[in-house]
Amino acid sequence: EIVAALDSFASINMADTQTIMGEENANKFFSGMNIMITAGPTREAIDPVRYISNHSSGKMGYAIAYAASQLGAKVTLVSGPVNIPPPEQVEVESVVSAQEMYDAVMGDIASQDIFIACAAVADYRVDNASDQKMKKNKDQGLTLSFTQNPDILKSVAALENAPFTVGFAAETQDVVQYAKSKLERKKLNMIAANDVSKPGLGFNSDKNALIVITPNTKFDLVQASKDSLALSLLKLVEQEYKATQKSR
Amino acid sequence: EIVAALDSFASINMADTQTIMGEENANKFFSGMNIMITAGPTREAIDPVRYISNHSSGKMGYAIAYAASQLGAKVTLVSGPVNIPPPEQVEVESVVSAQEMYDAVMGDIASQDIFIACAAVADYRVDNASDQKMKKNKDQGLTLSFTQNPDILKSVAALENAPFTVGFAAETQDVVQYAKSKLERKKLNMIAANDVSKPGLGFNSDKNALIVITPNTKFDLVQASKDSLALSLLKLVEQEYKATQKSR
Repeated sequence: EIVAALDSFASINMADTQTIMGEENANKFFSGMNIMITAGPTREAIDPVRYISNHSSGKMGYAIAYAASQLGAKVTLVSGPVNIPPPEQVEVESVVSAQEMYDAVMGDIASQDIFIACAAVADYRVDNASDQKMKKNKDQGLTLSFTQNPDILKSVAALENAPFTVGFAAETQDVVQYAKSKLERKKLNMIAANDVSKPGLGFNSDKNALIVITPNTKFDLVQASKDSLALSLLKLVEQEYKATQKSR
Repeated sequence: EIVAALDSFASINMADTQTIMGEENANKFFSGMNIMITAGPTREAIDPVRYISNHSSGKMGYAIAYAASQLGAKVTLVSGPVNIPPPEQVEVESVVSAQEMYDAVMGDIASQDIFIACAAVADYRVDNASDQKMKKNKDQGLTLSFTQNPDILKSVAALENAPFTVGFAAETQDVVQYAKSKLERKKLNMIAANDVSKPGLGFNSDKNALIVITPNTKFDLVQASKDSLALSLLKLVEQEYKATQKSR
């Protein structure tokens, strides 16, 4: 059964995205459902000028948001600072820091059926961000200390009436092992893992490849455009979501 | 004389940029000259995913590069990671870190007549950037230590045959005082200071206002588009450059 699923997705990836959209639109299988998606990086201020961020472009999350909307969902996209236009028919809530993203997500999570955490959220924030631009201290070095940010994904999955929760894991080594461990530790329904050390894939690229893991299955979504992968991922989400609803 | 200069620049700022371009093109007063401009932020890696950067958009530096090229200069633009297209007829050298920017600048500085350091270069880099994505350490905090990056502007100005050197100072307080101190400490020919704490100006904005300081004069370039300010600044550079050539 897993192999069959793999085959069908491999072929979807090779098909023309627009054609798939056309076919899928016939079902609109997310009609009447609320889906919240996080996307992009977060930025943690060091001072008014400097910040810590990461290489997430937001493209994957925006592609998922657009595809979910096309498939009938009412989509809320909580987005860190990115340089891509908001998708049509998607409500975008712009945030900067991990704490702001946490507040935006938790403030509206109760009404969501599905939560897809695609954002690359900063694990840490600077302990004492400065109100004024820090001055260079002669020839000396610098030490900054950091506090952990709230874990948005874990917090959502731990809610009493948690939505169907999908995480992402961007790793540079032992990708599947880290992703499985994250799925179990944070009690997710699904996790999509990608190897960001591969050149031309993942961060800042238009292409990606995903390994999608649930508590019982593992799917390989082979290298494709992020638009195409977004559809393949959502097809898996639909399938697994239905399965969890039956088992309730 | 300073007041007269101020008046003429104030009126230039209010005029249509294209008209100015048309007039200035008649002289092309940088013909046959090499001008190097740095622009944008730099990024200092923490690990393959995370980095430290700043809010510089590169717009001011790109506007200066374009204007200098229109005024006849052969322009080399050493640019950190930005999201704006390279100006026509400008040679762009793309870099990421402060060390890369230093290497790119120093490798080609000997042939430059004028050097304009508009980039917001990271003062510090992480001591031991990780080859692999760092994992969150349970519920513990994090400490990072930093080393100072080479000072590009100071290194250029200290060269035996230094080009006419223009620095920028983006400050959030005591703007003129910090800029003057930077001009003297780094032995610059000119510094352009702006207050990045003012909303709607400076970083990420299309508008800016500059206070231009030389060892003997101070000019206020009032709020205007970055394109217009670039021209006003280059007019001051031309004037001061000629003066330093005479005094040699």
